[in-house]
Amino acid sequence: MSYYSPSIEKLVEAFERLPSIGHKTAVRLAFHMLDANEEETNEFINSIINAKKNLKYCSKCYNISDSDPCIICANPKRDESVICVVEDVKDIIAMEKTHEFKGVYHVLHGSISPMNGIGPDDIKLKELLERLNPETVKEIILATNPRVEGEATAMYISKLVKPLGIKVTRIAHGIPVGGDLEYTDEITLTKALEGRREI
Amino acid sequence: MSYYSPSIEKLVEAFERLPSIGHKTAVRLAFHMLDANEEETNEFINSIINAKKNLKYCSKCYNISDSDPCIICANPKRDESVICVVEDVKDIIAMEKTHEFKGVYHVLHGSISPMNGIGPDDIKLKELLERLNPETVKEIILATNPRVEGEATAMYISKLVKPLGIKVTRIAHGIPVGGDLEYTDEITLTKALEGRREI
Repeated sequence: MSYYSPSIEKLVEAFERLPSIGHKTAVRLAFHMLDANEEETNEFINSIINAKKNLKYCSKCYNISDSDPCIICANPKRDESVICVVEDVKDIIAMEKTHEFKGVYHVLHGSISPMNGIGPDDIKLKELLERLNPETVKEIILATNPRVEGEATAMYISKLVKPLGIKVTRIAHGIPVGGDLEYTDEITLTKALEGRREI
Repeated sequence: MSYYSPSIEKLVEAFERLPSIGHKTAVRLAFHMLDANEEETNEFINSIINAKKNLKYCSKCYNISDSDPCIICANPKRDESVICVVEDVKDIIAMEKTHEFKGVYHVLHGSISPMNGIGPDDIKLKELLERLNPETVKEIILATNPRVEGEATAMYISKLVKPLGIKVTRIAHGIPVGGDLEYTDEITLTKALEGRREI
């Protein structure tokens, strides 16, 4: 039995469907919405509507952007000879925060995962290969996630790209900075050992 | 410097303004919204619009409801001679979950808090007094939150209501002091109802 009015019930359910929002948080958010004034509510709703309306895929790198090409692809200071391949749009943000990478990106929008029925044709792989002109592209950095699917995708791409004479690299696996050797899993530690460098 | 497209940025900011949502959760929710199909998005937006449009205050108890009077006030089985006074609409839900209370409610929409500049005229206190016909109302249960403001509000109301010859009770301190009525478990709240004392 529900104790809420139907409209409140529906609002709570709508918030509950969002990821990482439980029932209590959903109730709090719903009542926050009810308490909000018209301007605040409209601003919230319009931010969703505008985002859905304005955002499109960049036709070069498949980043989500207000413009096509996206800000990164349109920036003449970015080095188009180095392409960093990531699984997700959010991964671009993570890379950009390092301030270390000056090349461009390619978003796969997923990784090859036969278990989930996702094959090479279900991600933006064909689109990546179309960008790979050996005369202009010097290096492909594979920055897919260090999980089974990400590794498999990286292996798959490297086998396709290497014959083109383009350098293919994979971001290093190791212990995260600030991490604890004691709590690092064996596979990561093995990778960290393998990837050791002279200092 | 922001790494997001303006529309994503605005959407993330909109989610960040919600209570108990930090930056990382806001980013996750924003991208969830972008991934959602049109039907899901419309359902979410409409649940907010409909809730804001349909919900109104019950003119008797000031509960938020799709109907006026609200479901509880309109229910002929509820005992109108006992009025439970709560601070917030959410507190009604907490009380209803005990299945112990068969009377009606009055929502103050706040508590007296001189520190925050909230006086007796800023809450629905006048409206409560207008309902108090000594011939029909036998008891007032003060179920304001067990905090300084709630206690002060309860004391203030009891002093106003007692001269009318109406019994005034306060829910027992079975509720942990400093706690929140909204998040109290049903058993504790039931105990608190049973142990109410005349003040």
